[in-house]
Amino acid sequence: MRPEYSFDIDVMFYDTDCGGVVHNIAYLRHIEYARTKLAEKLGMDLPGMATRQEYPVVVRTEIDYRKPAKLGDTLTVRAWLSGLERVRFYIDLDITRKGDPLKLITCHQTLAIVRMPEGKIQPVLKEWRTQYTFDTPESST
Amino acid sequence: MRPEYSFDIDVMFYDTDCGGVVHNIAYLRHIEYARTKLAEKLGMDLPGMATRQEYPVVVRTEIDYRKPAKLGDTLTVRAWLSGLERVRFYIDLDITRKGDPLKLITCHQTLAIVRMPEGKIQPVLKEWRTQYTFDTPESST
Amino acid sequence: MRPEYSFDIDVMFYDTDCGGVVHNIAYLRHIEYARTKLAEKLGMDLPGMATRQEYPVVVRTEIDYRKPAKLGDTLTVRAWLSGLERVRFYIDLDITRKGDPLKLITCHQTLAIVRMPEGKIQPVLKEWRTQYTFDTPESST
Amino acid sequence: MRPEYSFDIDVMFYDTDCGGVVHNIAYLRHIEYARTKLAEKLGMDLPGMATRQEYPVVVRTEIDYRKPAKLGDTLTVRAWLSGLERVRFYIDLDITRKGDPLKLITCHQTLAIVRMPEGKIQPVLKEWRTQYTFDTPESST
Repeated sequence: MRPEYSFDIDVMFYDTDCGGVVHNIAYLRHIEYARTKLAEKLGMDLPGMATRQEYPVVVRTEIDYRKPAKLGDTLTVRAWLSGLERVRFYIDLDITRKGDPLKLITCHQTLAIVRMPEGKIQPVLKEWRTQYTFDTPESST
Repeated sequence: MRPEYSFDIDVMFYDTDCGGVVHNIAYLRHIEYARTKLAEKLGMDLPGMATRQEYPVVVRTEIDYRKPAKLGDTLTVRAWLSGLERVRFYIDLDITRKGDPLKLITCHQTLAIVRMPEGKIQPVLKEWRTQYTFDTPESST
Repeated sequence: MRPEYSFDIDVMFYDTDCGGVVHNIAYLRHIEYARTKLAEKLGMDLPGMATRQEYPVVVRTEIDYRKPAKLGDTLTVRAWLSGLERVRFYIDLDITRKGDPLKLITCHQTLAIVRMPEGKIQPVLKEWRTQYTFDTPESST
Repeated sequence: MRPEYSFDIDVMFYDTDCGGVVHNIAYLRHIEYARTKLAEKLGMDLPGMATRQEYPVVVRTEIDYRKPAKLGDTLTVRAWLSGLERVRFYIDLDITRKGDPLKLITCHQTLAIVRMPEGKIQPVLKEWRTQYTFDTPESST
């Protein structure tokens, strides 16, 4: 089983800029939405996290802007768990127009689970290692 | 018939601030989403608008922050056409927690339809006057 | 003495939308910046507030979008304390192009000081009443 | 000469999230501000670009979140031209607390100059090659 989450979202005026296309920062919001919902599937629901004071924190983002989206587009945003180490895990995402396989955006994020307020990094849940299968390292970037 | 649009949205980290609640500006995005989808229902779809170069423009926003929303909340955002003049129309909105009638946010927006790039204000579609019923003036604020 | 704060800011791509002008939500960030710096002048500096756990909270915003700003514009954002009641105070703001008196945006905000995490509303500092002069009620809207 | 731009900015409530620190997306706005002002220094001022319809477009962002910033911090954001190819150029950025060399954020962006509305990629200005010196490739990531 490869844990995955996807959703569709219409491009809004506030997502675009005066170049006529979606602004580079706007995609990061969609990426966070998909990542958060994926984290819920993995057992890191928001109220549970708030109780345990353990939050998944983005430590690195790599994002490629391949093709621009426009007002009127419906986007499909897809996130999946792509790798796992002792204290880090990796999420890959892509964004396409709905029903069109052409990738507009690809993104690779590195995350850690941090206990607040100390900022202490926690080990990634071991169960994930046996529960899930991952992209081979070659395909993870 | 009273044209209305509503949708549910989960509060994300990017919606909140370090006071622990949803930031006042974040609600405006949800309000724009509901207003844009309502405008579609009224015949102002985004691709059609881009072709005619006629855009609904917010000329005034009044928003009351009654109760705070938090991470983990699912919000219901509701927008309806609340009034109509020759060159202006009014949209009212409220935001509640899903399934809870308590209003967190109430908002009243004044809009005009503007033809770009001249910035010329267009008359509101007359058909709306016969097609739709509205809030009485007393209830529109 | 009328406490006031103003600053200049260049319009960025992320402030604009595909209509070619500054998006309505973008001004709210500038408004918060000016309001926060004005609050500092009034004795509500951010570290002090964090220590006392007392935050100025926006309870109502009225904003009029009079003329659009564009990429390449430098904006002057001006905020002043415009009124005072027992548990509420009022801030007025306007935004112009730098060196041009024409108002693009006018805004009137109602604020309260809230002690967190209880959410308890605190009385506005009495000293303000004797220290500052205000707009007459007629001019505050 | 190494073209560089830096500015200081106070952390605002809208930059933070309920984890108590600056949200990962907020830094991207500061990064765009520094990059845009650096581009002006390099001859790509916003009004000039609008006239020529040639815009610098971000094609890739790599950003490392090393240490969190908080409300009350004043940040120093620094951007410099770090590399140049025929149709791409590279900008590196870092963010620190003002007066403290500890890097909170480091960022490497790849840009192209695109003529709109065709979306045609333009060669990078040759003059840059003789005018400016760059980081060695080893240090550019």
